Amino acid sequence: TQQLLSEPTQETPRAQPYRVSTADRSVRKGVTAHSLEDLLHKVRDILMLADKPFFLVLEEDGTTVETEDYFRALAGDTVFMVLQKGQKWQPPSEQRSRYQP
Amino acid sequence: TQQLLSEPTQETPRAQPYRVSTADRSVRKGVTAHSLEDLLHKVRDILMLADKPFFLVLEEDGTTVETEDYFRALAGDTVFMVLQKGQKWQPPSEQRSRYQP
Repeated sequence: TQQLLSEPTQETPRAQPYRVSTADRSVRKGVTAHSLEDLLHKVRDILMLADKPFFLVLEEDGTTVETEDYFRALAGDTVFMVLQKGQKWQPPSEQRSRYQP
Repeated sequence: TQQLLSEPTQETPRAQPYRVSTADRSVRKGVTAHSLEDLLHKVRDILMLADKPFFLVLEEDGTTVETEDYFRALAGDTVFMVLQKGQKWQPPSEQRSRYQP
């Protein structure tokens, strides 16, 4: 995608689309965000986390995303997973099998 | 992605995203780095290794990454594993089986 780079405000990059999943992969929502901070705010609203602590990992392999630098280096449409206290990333295959008797 | 190569500062290539795992694969974090030296510094902070000696290997097969040349030749999003004294690379399959009774 081509982008004009003439805008004077480098601090607020164009919002990119991302996807956010719950830890059990039962809910997945689309959201746009300018920054990791922005995404964390929106995720709190969208998944109604109120003031519960949480963090974001990559849905594909559980990599923790903690810094704006790393966030900016990720592609748009990256799928994040929200992990709350006590929740752990699990590969999709193992998770699916838990629901099968 | 096309990049302009006209910039005079060859010493600081654009930071690339990488992933860093602990030896037991229980922690995996995203980090950006300009060089192997930069990555080693950031890993020390991120994984709170203080002044303990460690080195980096490729998570997929335990290949030791020692030189800037080799580091630069790796793709962004490469997954590294941190090995401290006494730690050995193990394939994911063997490791996972240790957690199952």
